[in-house]
Amino acid sequence: MHIDIILTHEAMSLRQIKGKICIVIDTLRATSTIITALNSGCSEVIPASSISEALRLKENNMYNKYLLGGEIEGQHIQNFHLGNSPLEYCNGHFQSNGLIFSTTNGTRTLQKVRKARSVVVCALLNATAVVNWLTGQSKDILICCAGTRGNYSLEDFLTAGCIVSGLTERKYSCTTTDIAFTAACFYRYNKQLAGSSLSFASLLKRTINGKRLLEAGFEEDIIYCGQQDIIPVLPFYKNGTIKASDKLL
Amino acid sequence: MHIDIILTHEAMSLRQIKGKICIVIDTLRATSTIITALNSGCSEVIPASSISEALRLKENNMYNKYLLGGEIEGQHIQNFHLGNSPLEYCNGHFQSNGLIFSTTNGTRTLQKVRKARSVVVCALLNATAVVNWLTGQSKDILICCAGTRGNYSLEDFLTAGCIVSGLTERKYSCTTTDIAFTAACFYRYNKQLAGSSLSFASLLKRTINGKRLLEAGFEEDIIYCGQQDIIPVLPFYKNGTIKASDKLL
Repeated sequence: MHIDIILTHEAMSLRQIKGKICIVIDTLRATSTIITALNSGCSEVIPASSISEALRLKENNMYNKYLLGGEIEGQHIQNFHLGNSPLEYCNGHFQSNGLIFSTTNGTRTLQKVRKARSVVVCALLNATAVVNWLTGQSKDILICCAGTRGNYSLEDFLTAGCIVSGLTERKYSCTTTDIAFTAACFYRYNKQLAGSSLSFASLLKRTINGKRLLEAGFEEDIIYCGQQDIIPVLPFYKNGTIKASDKLL
Repeated sequence: MHIDIILTHEAMSLRQIKGKICIVIDTLRATSTIITALNSGCSEVIPASSISEALRLKENNMYNKYLLGGEIEGQHIQNFHLGNSPLEYCNGHFQSNGLIFSTTNGTRTLQKVRKARSVVVCALLNATAVVNWLTGQSKDILICCAGTRGNYSLEDFLTAGCIVSGLTERKYSCTTTDIAFTAACFYRYNKQLAGSSLSFASLLKRTINGKRLLEAGFEEDIIYCGQQDIIPVLPFYKNGTIKASDKLL
C-alpha cells in the first residue's frame, strides 16, 4: 500500500486516481459539513458542481423533497435552504430525506475523483473512522486535498497528515511519497501542541481560510471543524451520491 | 516582513518575485555544492541554464581559466571538470579562479529569479548565515525551492522550514503564508528528532532524491548536505554571478 497526497483539486489528473482509493478532504468546511449531515439523519448527500446543477437535480421528482445546501465563494446561495456551516446541519432538518450540496472547492474535488476505485469523504471529525477502514484495505491511496482556489490549504494538509500518521503507525508495510511523509510530520508536530484534547482550532484559526471565517463571524465553525474523531461516520461517494457505510467501525 | 514559499521553480511566476528577497534552495545538491565551492576559495560561480550555455561561457576570454561543473539528470557531463557532488569541491581546485555551473533544477531556479530585488543561495549548510542576514532586512521574502522535475522535494522544504523557523523566532513582526508556517512546523518536528547534532542525514536518505543518490553511491554527499550550519558563507546572485558576501556574519 502506497500513500500519496495531492495539494489541490486543480493539480489532480485522471491518470493519478485510476485504481486508487481516494480520500477527499475539505476541512473548512465542505467535507466537515457532509459528515455532520450524514451523522444527523441525512439519507444521502448529492454533490453538485454548480448552483445550476443543484437546482436542476432538485427539479427531478426523485429529489424534490431534498434540501439544497452549500455556498459560492463563501457566501450563502439565494433560495438554498442551508449554507456551508456544519453547525446548521447538526439536527432537526433531516427526516430521512437527503441533501443536494454545492460548494466552491469541496464538491468539485468529489466530482473530479468519481472514477477512482473508491472515494471516501474525510475531515478531522471522522479521521480515525477513515483510518480504521483503510487499515483493512490493500490498494494504493491518493489523498485529495480540495485546497482553496488552486492554493494550498493548511487545514486539509493537517487532516491528510492525520490519515497518513494513523495508517503508517498501524500498517508498517505502508510506503509514502515525500509529501505524504511531510504531512504526517506536520500533523504529529501539531498533535503534540494540541495535547490530549485533539482540538486543532487554534491552528485552524491562523490559516487563511480560518481568518476569513473568523471575519465572517464563523468562529464556532472553526472550533467545531478542528475537533478530531467526534463522528464515527464513514461516507462513501459512489454513483453520484454520498452515503454513510452501514459497516460497524 | 512577509514570508512565502514556492515548492518548485516550475510553479514560479515573474510577478511573485518582483521586489522580493529570493532565497534559492536545492539542498540535494546544487546549492550545497555552490556554497561549498565558495567556501573553498572559488572566486565566483556562474550558473548556466544548459550545457551549451556553460560551454559558450567557457569560450569567453574572461572565463577560460574557469572550471566547468554540474550534472544533467544526475549524471556527470562529458568534458566537464567536476560533477555535482559537493565533496568534489571541498579543496584544491580553486586558485582564485571561478566555476561555470549547470544542473538540472538548481541553476534553472537561479536564472528564473534573477530579476528579484536580492537573490541568496541557501542550503542546510549555511542556513543560519542566511537567517542572520535576513534578520536585518525588511523586504518580503520568497523562498524558492528548486524541486525535482516539477515535483515537491522534501529536503528543500526542510531547509525552507529552517529559514522560516529561525526568522520567525527572531522577528516577531514576521508574517507567514500557510505553506511557510507548515514548513517551519515540519523543520521543528525533525529538529527534535535530530537532536543537538543538527544532522538531517537519516531524513534526507528516505527522500526520493536521497534514495536515488544512495543507489548511485553518493551516501557521503547526503551525510554532508544534511549538516546544518557548518559553513558561514552568504552567497548573493547578482548580475549573472554568485559571490560570497564580504560582510562578516
